[in-house]
Amino acid sequence: MSLDIAATKPHEQLAEALSGDLEAVNAMIRARMASEHAPRIPEVTAHLVEAGGKRLRPMLTLAAARMCGYDGPYHIHLASTVEFIHTATLLHDDVVDESSQRRGRPTANLLWDNTSSVLVGDYLFARSFQLMVETGSMRVLDILANASATIAEGEVLQLTAAADLATTEEIYLKVVRGKTAALFSAAMKVGGVIAGQDDATVQALFDYGDALGIAFQIVDDLLDYGGTDAIGKNTGDDFRERKLTLPVIRAVAAADAEEREFWVRTIQKGRQEEGDLAHAIGLLAKHSAMEQTRDDAIAWAEKAKASLSAIPDHPLKTMLTDLADYVVARIT
Amino acid sequence: MSLDIAATKPHEQLAEALSGDLEAVNAMIRARMASEHAPRIPEVTAHLVEAGGKRLRPMLTLAAARMCGYDGPYHIHLASTVEFIHTATLLHDDVVDESSQRRGRPTANLLWDNTSSVLVGDYLFARSFQLMVETGSMRVLDILANASATIAEGEVLQLTAAADLATTEEIYLKVVRGKTAALFSAAMKVGGVIAGQDDATVQALFDYGDALGIAFQIVDDLLDYGGTDAIGKNTGDDFRERKLTLPVIRAVAAADAEEREFWVRTIQKGRQEEGDLAHAIGLLAKHSAMEQTRDDAIAWAEKAKASLSAIPDHPLKTMLTDLADYVVARIT
Repeated sequence: MSLDIAATKPHEQLAEALSGDLEAVNAMIRARMASEHAPRIPEVTAHLVEAGGKRLRPMLTLAAARMCGYDGPYHIHLASTVEFIHTATLLHDDVVDESSQRRGRPTANLLWDNTSSVLVGDYLFARSFQLMVETGSMRVLDILANASATIAEGEVLQLTAAADLATTEEIYLKVVRGKTAALFSAAMKVGGVIAGQDDATVQALFDYGDALGIAFQIVDDLLDYGGTDAIGKNTGDDFRERKLTLPVIRAVAAADAEEREFWVRTIQKGRQEEGDLAHAIGLLAKHSAMEQTRDDAIAWAEKAKASLSAIPDHPLKTMLTDLADYVVARIT
Repeated sequence: MSLDIAATKPHEQLAEALSGDLEAVNAMIRARMASEHAPRIPEVTAHLVEAGGKRLRPMLTLAAARMCGYDGPYHIHLASTVEFIHTATLLHDDVVDESSQRRGRPTANLLWDNTSSVLVGDYLFARSFQLMVETGSMRVLDILANASATIAEGEVLQLTAAADLATTEEIYLKVVRGKTAALFSAAMKVGGVIAGQDDATVQALFDYGDALGIAFQIVDDLLDYGGTDAIGKNTGDDFRERKLTLPVIRAVAAADAEEREFWVRTIQKGRQEEGDLAHAIGLLAKHSAMEQTRDDAIAWAEKAKASLSAIPDHPLKTMLTDLADYVVARIT
């Protein structure tokens, strides 16, 4: 590996190593997103699907399949499936997020957007369903059906757990699996299944995706309170939305009576005032909630790497290992 | 068949003949709707799923399978699948309908409902997906994936076709297939497939469901303008929502310049005044749009019955035939 490549980020290395496959995925996404009868559909999804995020989830599928020596055509279908599911989830999240953030002062435009978000999200789910059926693998369908249920259940759970100070770490993990890790793990697993790997290997791939997804989401939740330095941009969204993320769960668990009153007022009752976010961050610092949460994220990243230990060496395996380190690098 | 049975409505006869299967479907729906972690889910769906509509769609699957001599367990899974898809669609429609009907004056409660509707709808889709995977039939999955895509595309198309006077009968049929007929036809078809029927029989079952669903929806659209008598309750919703249903499409096609101006103002521009609905109904009468639409519905019901002609005689076949007549009986 040249110094040049070593200097790039792991997801960029993956994109480079998988560039041919990724082009095929992009072409398939464009083709399958199109609707003969409802031209609005690509309009709505174009900015989400075309303008290309990092394509992290489809790359997991491609990497898993290629690392396992797959040379058939269906990893492209599955990577596209995974990206469609991800995009559909984002569209439906829009409705949910708009509801909580702008409650009481929605615009007509917001409501029209809700409609498009719901229906076009459903369309992408249906398209992803057709794509996975084309692989002819019942096991793949089983994996993705279960992932879909975990995702949907986690989203509902997140809604009901919001503002609930009784939320435990266990519930938090279920929410995180629904939000992020279930699709990461399924993306890895279907790559192994389509490549005909044995159960142990498939489980290892699943475990990697699961742990990577959890680390990824914990880091996100940590950064929402400014990271370990309590410095950062766009912090405080989770606080304002009264989400019980891991740092807050830890601080609530360690709270004395007065602190608990603060959390009851700001999170449970939602009566937030100027200066509350700063005070909350102070409490997180006081109880080392940020450091504990950071350690958790690092432990999940280590678990992700360890999951791959039984997989034979492969350049893609090295990149996936580096990716796990990279995910937590923002907070270390 | 006793006189008593002959006097009941066809869907009641079906419910009676399939009562054991329907009980099994209800039990499966209750079991699969439950979520260990998110108790809100059955809360939201209970009134939709429990309080039992007519269970028309699952009965189509059960009737098709039984009529074809099926005696395995999976028609129960598939009937439950179909009901879950139907319920999920209703939940997502809520968001869409609220958007168009109450645009500009939503309540906080409306938005919370939106959120639940979206996420619980997604959960039911995922559950239905798991149920169909359990059947182990790739052909069943293919049918339901295609139906899902048709449904989602039809919903988007309905949205974009609203207020568009250029909407053709062809587009209307696509919308109707998405709204109603695609799930009717898929419900019938999977019943035949799981019973191992040949292609011609499976196609006949599909055609019956397709034609029945179209007749059903045309009747609904007709009654929204008061039926052939222009008398009825709760009429005018489609007019107020500026939907291009078949009666209006016909009246617009036959409109002179002055009438066209009326349609442009009320439907295209949405500037509706007191008395406009009555005037619209008058125009439908003037151009025999209601009679033409009624004739269309009857023709689709006849097509549904004819589709079953190649299927061997069976008490359930008689009930399905009667059902097609019954669907259009409200307007004849």
